[in-house]
Amino acid sequence: MGKLNMPRTDLALEVRETFPEDDVEIQGVILKEEYNKKKDIKVTTVTIKDERGSKAMGKPIGTYITIEAVKLDEKDESFQEPISKEIAKYIRQLAGEVSGKEILIAGLGNREVTPDALGPQVVDNLLVTRHLKKEYGQEFLEKNKMGNISAIAPGVMAQTGMETSEILRGIIKETMPKLIVVIDALAARSVSRVNKTIQITDTGISPGSGVGNNRRALNKESLGVDVIALGIPTVVDAATIVMDSMEHFMQGQGFAEQEINQFTREVGEQSMRNMFVTPKNIDEAVKQISYTVSEALNQCFA
Amino acid sequence: MGKLNMPRTDLALEVRETFPEDDVEIQGVILKEEYNKKKDIKVTTVTIKDERGSKAMGKPIGTYITIEAVKLDEKDESFQEPISKEIAKYIRQLAGEVSGKEILIAGLGNREVTPDALGPQVVDNLLVTRHLKKEYGQEFLEKNKMGNISAIAPGVMAQTGMETSEILRGIIKETMPKLIVVIDALAARSVSRVNKTIQITDTGISPGSGVGNNRRALNKESLGVDVIALGIPTVVDAATIVMDSMEHFMQGQGFAEQEINQFTREVGEQSMRNMFVTPKNIDEAVKQISYTVSEALNQCFA
Amino acid sequence: MGKLNMPRTDLALEVRETFPEDDVEIQGVILKEEYNKKKDIKVTTVTIKDERGSKAMGKPIGTYITIEAVKLDEKDESFQEPISKEIAKYIRQLAGEVSGKEILIAGLGNREVTPDALGPQVVDNLLVTRHLKKEYGQEFLEKNKMGNISAIAPGVMAQTGMETSEILRGIIKETMPKLIVVIDALAARSVSRVNKTIQITDTGISPGSGVGNNRRALNKESLGVDVIALGIPTVVDAATIVMDSMEHFMQGQGFAEQEINQFTREVGEQSMRNMFVTPKNIDEAVKQISYTVSEALNQCFA
Amino acid sequence: MGKLNMPRTDLALEVRETFPEDDVEIQGVILKEEYNKKKDIKVTTVTIKDERGSKAMGKPIGTYITIEAVKLDEKDESFQEPISKEIAKYIRQLAGEVSGKEILIAGLGNREVTPDALGPQVVDNLLVTRHLKKEYGQEFLEKNKMGNISAIAPGVMAQTGMETSEILRGIIKETMPKLIVVIDALAARSVSRVNKTIQITDTGISPGSGVGNNRRALNKESLGVDVIALGIPTVVDAATIVMDSMEHFMQGQGFAEQEINQFTREVGEQSMRNMFVTPKNIDEAVKQISYTVSEALNQCFA
Repeated sequence: MGKLNMPRTDLALEVRETFPEDDVEIQGVILKEEYNKKKDIKVTTVTIKDERGSKAMGKPIGTYITIEAVKLDEKDESFQEPISKEIAKYIRQLAGEVSGKEILIAGLGNREVTPDALGPQVVDNLLVTRHLKKEYGQEFLEKNKMGNISAIAPGVMAQTGMETSEILRGIIKETMPKLIVVIDALAARSVSRVNKTIQITDTGISPGSGVGNNRRALNKESLGVDVIALGIPTVVDAATIVMDSMEHFMQGQGFAEQEINQFTREVGEQSMRNMFVTPKNIDEAVKQISYTVSEALNQCFA
Repeated sequence: MGKLNMPRTDLALEVRETFPEDDVEIQGVILKEEYNKKKDIKVTTVTIKDERGSKAMGKPIGTYITIEAVKLDEKDESFQEPISKEIAKYIRQLAGEVSGKEILIAGLGNREVTPDALGPQVVDNLLVTRHLKKEYGQEFLEKNKMGNISAIAPGVMAQTGMETSEILRGIIKETMPKLIVVIDALAARSVSRVNKTIQITDTGISPGSGVGNNRRALNKESLGVDVIALGIPTVVDAATIVMDSMEHFMQGQGFAEQEINQFTREVGEQSMRNMFVTPKNIDEAVKQISYTVSEALNQCFA
Repeated sequence: MGKLNMPRTDLALEVRETFPEDDVEIQGVILKEEYNKKKDIKVTTVTIKDERGSKAMGKPIGTYITIEAVKLDEKDESFQEPISKEIAKYIRQLAGEVSGKEILIAGLGNREVTPDALGPQVVDNLLVTRHLKKEYGQEFLEKNKMGNISAIAPGVMAQTGMETSEILRGIIKETMPKLIVVIDALAARSVSRVNKTIQITDTGISPGSGVGNNRRALNKESLGVDVIALGIPTVVDAATIVMDSMEHFMQGQGFAEQEINQFTREVGEQSMRNMFVTPKNIDEAVKQISYTVSEALNQCFA
Repeated sequence: MGKLNMPRTDLALEVRETFPEDDVEIQGVILKEEYNKKKDIKVTTVTIKDERGSKAMGKPIGTYITIEAVKLDEKDESFQEPISKEIAKYIRQLAGEVSGKEILIAGLGNREVTPDALGPQVVDNLLVTRHLKKEYGQEFLEKNKMGNISAIAPGVMAQTGMETSEILRGIIKETMPKLIVVIDALAARSVSRVNKTIQITDTGISPGSGVGNNRRALNKESLGVDVIALGIPTVVDAATIVMDSMEHFMQGQGFAEQEINQFTREVGEQSMRNMFVTPKNIDEAVKQISYTVSEALNQCFA
């Protein structure tokens, strides 16, 4: 499958899957898979080591950990605790020592749009500790192995008139955190990934991504501090779903790639542009997942 | 296009459009179209007069008024007032004289699921008057040409364990209204109808329709009183969108109808079953439309 | 303290406390107190045995169980589980055998008014099972020792134009439950009871109580089936708080009861009529308590 | 009435009213009253001209405009339009020329606490324009006499771990607005002012005020740019209501000021500390008022 589809997914894992031979090694890219049968959680780590791998994947150099947990959006608390522990484990792996460390957690997205409200809802459930330092001193945080945690849900540009990166840069200048953790809802390509998957990466994130505007990117280069990004796919673009079904069908029927690209481009330009596909339980699922993610962050940091 | 697609839409207008020759007359079905250029509102009245028409359309005998207003989901109040007046006009047409009349308005759907919350949100904005009669007498309502209005948002079976029809029948037995008005969010086939269209009918409605369970139906037969149903499409099934795109493509490529049906059936049975397609502004749009619809009902009745 | 104050509380326990000599026995009223030190939960059972007790207490004959748990409104889940178990224990005591029994749970109140939204929010978190019977049969419920549970949040008269009792009577006629459980937010007299107390009684409840309108009452007489009522105080009337402080002060200063009554009546008639007093965390507390109460009901019945 | 009560109100008007002789002139303070009978809106402008006035009032030098509109919290739109126009008029008076001017609007408060959610809800309804400049150029804003508007709802310290002033200072450094407009819910002393009053001032605001921490203050000194603050009282402290009733009573009874202060101090230290008094319709009122205030801001700036 060609370049055409790349912008349709924010998940490194899905990019990897678009390569025709699944088990062939890509130069500069390391793939590691773990499966915890008891928890029914699969973890895939894609490490892009150099420019060659970066070019092949269309993603920056860095580590991309994808946790696939089919029960992530289920209401039953007994499923949520093991998942949040698993998420916490991999965040810790990228975050390093946290005791007393200044960390700003940013929940991106628009809280008025259900599938985009995940980031702000994570922030709603976080335990922040930065103001405790003023009251009880740095020793209090270190004794309790807590991070020095602040949090913000900055909203989106249509609400604020500002780029998310502008708001975060300003807050960073004023409060000087050592690490930024951003949480954002993503678009997946595959319906089966929606609300079942978390990508954790040290390469940052591009809100409204695929656009290639570096000022918009949230990464070490644009923010000046280390960034860990948690992305959870909560939607599929409606056009993507149609295009992918079509491609699959047309490939099966022996159409030439050029014909396929021509056709899918037409579909993508039509009325579905402002439509997305979500599960019927999206309101409940976003509430559930945001709770699990904030539990994971609270376990790591507070 | 074959019978196959019938269950995919709740709109009589969309059923009508599936007939291959658009301008041919169907026996027992009268079609009337009006277009208000200034308001940019198109109103199509489909009258199914007899059993023959009912069979052809796969819908009960009665009147189906479809109001298409492209600005229905826009936030600007200056658009909403003319639309609510237009809706009110057609409700009045079906409701007859309302002064002092006992009318129960039921907002169907699940308020925890954004695109299904339209009915409950309409009820949130209604002016009810039935309790005023006790205080000020029937004359008060008649002098002010008010209906005797009560309202309920009964929830859905997954929340209540009861059929909507059971709840409404019980309330009707106890409070004896002469007319029921039900409001419900529907599935459309076409993305372009979503949040742009209102269907008003005197034939009632089938919550979770296409299922053909008469106890579930909300109509004169099942409830024992006249029923006016307002249906607003807020979603398209994800499977429908893929199937329709496919059909369109395969017909263009000269596939046989049997092949098409075979293929689309497969798509429909896959992972998209619990997925729906909504506009990205669905939270805001449902709020906006529910407000416009309750304004229309308040104009008619209170 | 005189009769004057009686309408200011919905809690039998608070009525009992208004009697001057705390340890004197009232004829026809039995008082039993238990204290679980580990859980920090106090349970007081007031049993009104006959007309004499009923007259003295100004409450109907029956059992009034008051659970006082200071941690009821705290967010920590580790506090909530033992409390929900305690609530479940006393509901079971009044409900008798539940396996396969038809039970309708009604969450009273207005979900648009935060401290009154407790009942509707309890319903949001309930597990209903009545529709499972249709699918899997009565045996399924009995084998799992489940009740046959249905639920409704009927709203309040200003929203529906109907008395809550009318809506419930209608639904009862149609669906024939054997027991009704109603949940409602109450007014307490004392600030220290707010969001810390649950009253469970088999005597029913009067929404908008103190008004003495029997058609409004929800009890065996008005509904025709057994009723268990769960009441949770979430507010104090602003006038009550001022009047009680005043009374306390004036009694200390040796004012005559007549003067006190005169004064407090004036306060009660002033601008505070539509004001209530709530804790600053009321939004969070109502969410928390509704969750704990629905957990208790789910433990009992589902 | 003594100094004791000063911290109980955020309104300059209420401070002014605490002076025993209502019509006596305070040195350095100018008082101007206007009454629009048709709109039923009273506007009082208190101008504190110098240090002497500032000391007497316990408020910084500057202009305090108080708009009293008894219908501010009523749902009827016909009342809201004239009120929003009146608010807009006085904001313009303090803001000066806005065409093309960079203005940051900050809605303070906690959106999870109903009476404190006013600021965030105002931001939800604002029209922002700053991002339009990038797309259409500065001329576009100036041609349409629009301000260059950005907006943020920064949350409160318990949610973010950061002072509101830190967040705003950071955003100001990065985006360089020329004027900050902050909106915040206040505590009033008098129940009759709640949800009926708007204070507009060019002196800034102290979130969680009365605390005297200058870093917390939001004013020209702490933020480095001009500040206009809109404050709307939505609550009265429960202790205040009791204390004020008591004072009033005790003064009438001829108690000495010392006795009164002694008594009211005791009341203030009790269980009512975390309680506030709100109207029963607070959820609806906050929604209504936030809408009217954002309309006023949109009229001024967008």
